[in-house]
Amino acid sequence: MSLLRPRTVVHAHCDLPCGVYDPAQARYEAQSVKMMQEKYQSNEDPVYRTRAIMIIEQRAQFAKEHLWVLWTDYFKPEHVEKYPHLHDLFWRATKAAGAGGAKGNTDPESGQKLLDLIDEIAEIFWETKGGKPS
Amino acid sequence: MSLLRPRTVVHAHCDLPCGVYDPAQARYEAQSVKMMQEKYQSNEDPVYRTRAIMIIEQRAQFAKEHLWVLWTDYFKPEHVEKYPHLHDLFWRATKAAGAGGAKGNTDPESGQKLLDLIDEIAEIFWETKGGKPS
Amino acid sequence: MSLLRPRTVVHAHCDLPCGVYDPAQARYEAQSVKMMQEKYQSNEDPVYRTRAIMIIEQRAQFAKEHLWVLWTDYFKPEHVEKYPHLHDLFWRATKAAGAGGAKGNTDPESGQKLLDLIDEIAEIFWETKGGKPS
Amino acid sequence: MSLLRPRTVVHAHCDLPCGVYDPAQARYEAQSVKMMQEKYQSNEDPVYRTRAIMIIEQRAQFAKEHLWVLWTDYFKPEHVEKYPHLHDLFWRATKAAGAGGAKGNTDPESGQKLLDLIDEIAEIFWETKGGKPS
Amino acid sequence: MSLLRPRTVVHAHCDLPCGVYDPAQARYEAQSVKMMQEKYQSNEDPVYRTRAIMIIEQRAQFAKEHLWVLWTDYFKPEHVEKYPHLHDLFWRATKAAGAGGAKGNTDPESGQKLLDLIDEIAEIFWETKGGKPS
Amino acid sequence: MSLLRPRTVVHAHCDLPCGVYDPAQARYEAQSVKMMQEKYQSNEDPVYRTRAIMIIEQRAQFAKEHLWVLWTDYFKPEHVEKYPHLHDLFWRATKAAGAGGAKGNTDPESGQKLLDLIDEIAEIFWETKGGKPS
Repeated sequence: MSLLRPRTVVHAHCDLPCGVYDPAQARYEAQSVKMMQEKYQSNEDPVYRTRAIMIIEQRAQFAKEHLWVLWTDYFKPEHVEKYPHLHDLFWRATKAAGAGGAKGNTDPESGQKLLDLIDEIAEIFWETKGGKPS
Repeated sequence: MSLLRPRTVVHAHCDLPCGVYDPAQARYEAQSVKMMQEKYQSNEDPVYRTRAIMIIEQRAQFAKEHLWVLWTDYFKPEHVEKYPHLHDLFWRATKAAGAGGAKGNTDPESGQKLLDLIDEIAEIFWETKGGKPS
Repeated sequence: MSLLRPRTVVHAHCDLPCGVYDPAQARYEAQSVKMMQEKYQSNEDPVYRTRAIMIIEQRAQFAKEHLWVLWTDYFKPEHVEKYPHLHDLFWRATKAAGAGGAKGNTDPESGQKLLDLIDEIAEIFWETKGGKPS
Repeated sequence: MSLLRPRTVVHAHCDLPCGVYDPAQARYEAQSVKMMQEKYQSNEDPVYRTRAIMIIEQRAQFAKEHLWVLWTDYFKPEHVEKYPHLHDLFWRATKAAGAGGAKGNTDPESGQKLLDLIDEIAEIFWETKGGKPS
Repeated sequence: MSLLRPRTVVHAHCDLPCGVYDPAQARYEAQSVKMMQEKYQSNEDPVYRTRAIMIIEQRAQFAKEHLWVLWTDYFKPEHVEKYPHLHDLFWRATKAAGAGGAKGNTDPESGQKLLDLIDEIAEIFWETKGGKPS
Repeated sequence: MSLLRPRTVVHAHCDLPCGVYDPAQARYEAQSVKMMQEKYQSNEDPVYRTRAIMIIEQRAQFAKEHLWVLWTDYFKPEHVEKYPHLHDLFWRATKAAGAGGAKGNTDPESGQKLLDLIDEIAEIFWETKGGKPS
């Protein structure tokens, strides 16, 4: 980042064709979820709150979809062998993005829980790639 | 990021509520475009090629949409004042994602051109945020 | 067209292949936005109002998308040269369709402002086509 | 409007709240269909042709959806009483937008047939509104 | 099937290629509509209720779309000749899924009315297939 | 249901509020996939084949999405305890709907493999419901 010129905007360049997967895509959406939950808490206007609920709903859905794609499309049998809890982790993460989790929930803790699970997934993801490029 | 543990997956945390914008979202899609263009070139199977054209079409469209959102929703009048070519840059970038640009185009150069324009936008984006977090 | 403020924005048949662009597509959506804002004001039922907010959200989004398509896909460099404020006009119009504008807004003035900006765009659009067929 | 076959189908401003329905929305899509069919005929590049088939597919689908909305949402029992063939006309028009009609069809005649049926619908539509504003 | 009102609407395996149409697809959505209407009635939490209204809106829309597809794509002229009220039945069913019907409606009776109309359609559908496989 | 491998997967009416989940929704889409693969094999027209590839792509995607929803939203921890291979079964089924499976594949065997995995899921699903209503 010398000279402030961002050379790589995100760590989506891996050394080999990576299929352009990145847990970051789910994370953006989960961040929006949490942010809208916080904004919901600090604004009592009913129109604002209705919009916030709508946006939480959509963004939680998008987070869920990005996680599903990552689970089915990126991960391979050898990863599951090495990380036997991977399926369960994704299951809990997608549940955390759904009803009973962050969806329909105006408590930012539910958004944070989703973010934490995505971070756990990201850790495994970058390990499978031999570390995250700095 | 010591010990290769990714703490922040993407640079979406800015110091203040950032609205969760990031040119990276467009860039993921543009990378898919370019990769599919390369794969098209190296595979002559007609079914494969038809799928590649479909995916290029979709992904170029998504790149375009992410750019539009960034342009309209993130940037403010003071940014336009400081970067007077900003509108034109976005116009050229979204055209580079459309027909006449990367869409319907199997030449990876068109995907690269789109990536380059997104990188120009990213540079401005991170400057408006006081530099990209390392 | 200078004096004649267009009464009817739309006209799909042009004499030559027009690429089937027309600012009317955005205008339909903006009209729905304004109408739902008016209906919101005149109906206090909470279910009705929730639906109205949802529909305003969707329709404002569609208006925005039609405007983006028109901006990137229809207009050419020679148009921008002739109408140097074109980029800025589209930027303001798409902002008027977004949060801070008509989206999440139950005041019909915000819908009207969006309609006015679409009409400004329509005026330029039809000038680039040599006048609107009567 | 009996003699004057409408040349311009669309007209968004009606004098009274019109519910913002207009057969023009379907017509735009049908025009795209026919235009892409013509372009398909005049361009033998396989990538171009694949894209053309994709776009015909999408646009024919959009035309169909606009027609369905118009049929179910705009028209009322009194209209059906006055125009007893209305249901059948919409059925034929939506079939003309589907497989067996314009979809998956590269012959511009199939696009024209869809346009003609939309024009028949438009004629009835504007009659129910007491004539089309000039 | 005249006497036996179908208890189970759905049955995907038909003996011959059936084009994979089935009124059950609309019925699933209508069931969701009715269930969310019931849940709305039994839960006064405003966030829950806003979500319920959103989901009713979406699911009623999906039911409508499945019905449209069935009407236009599955049924053939000989069916309409044999069941002359078919068009009108679909028209009433899709209206029952729209505003004025189940959409934007929190009364489970509106969901039930939609289900009843789908069941009438299903009865005809299975008759056209020579009876529903047991 | 132990001996009786379900012949008909679908059954929407359960005796109690079932949440309106049903593996049949995925199965409809998988049937479309297989049928389009068969039609692809028996029709050499290039336009027809391009459409078939597009439809296989879409329908395989829908099958995948229905499976994801079922996995995350319907199944509960007690089910996973009883059926420890459930996660893996869904993983293989969604992979069978993706690239490397039925998507982008014109061989009907790939569609059949997807159908078989959905039938395995359906068997478990109906067991969790105490058997499928006849």
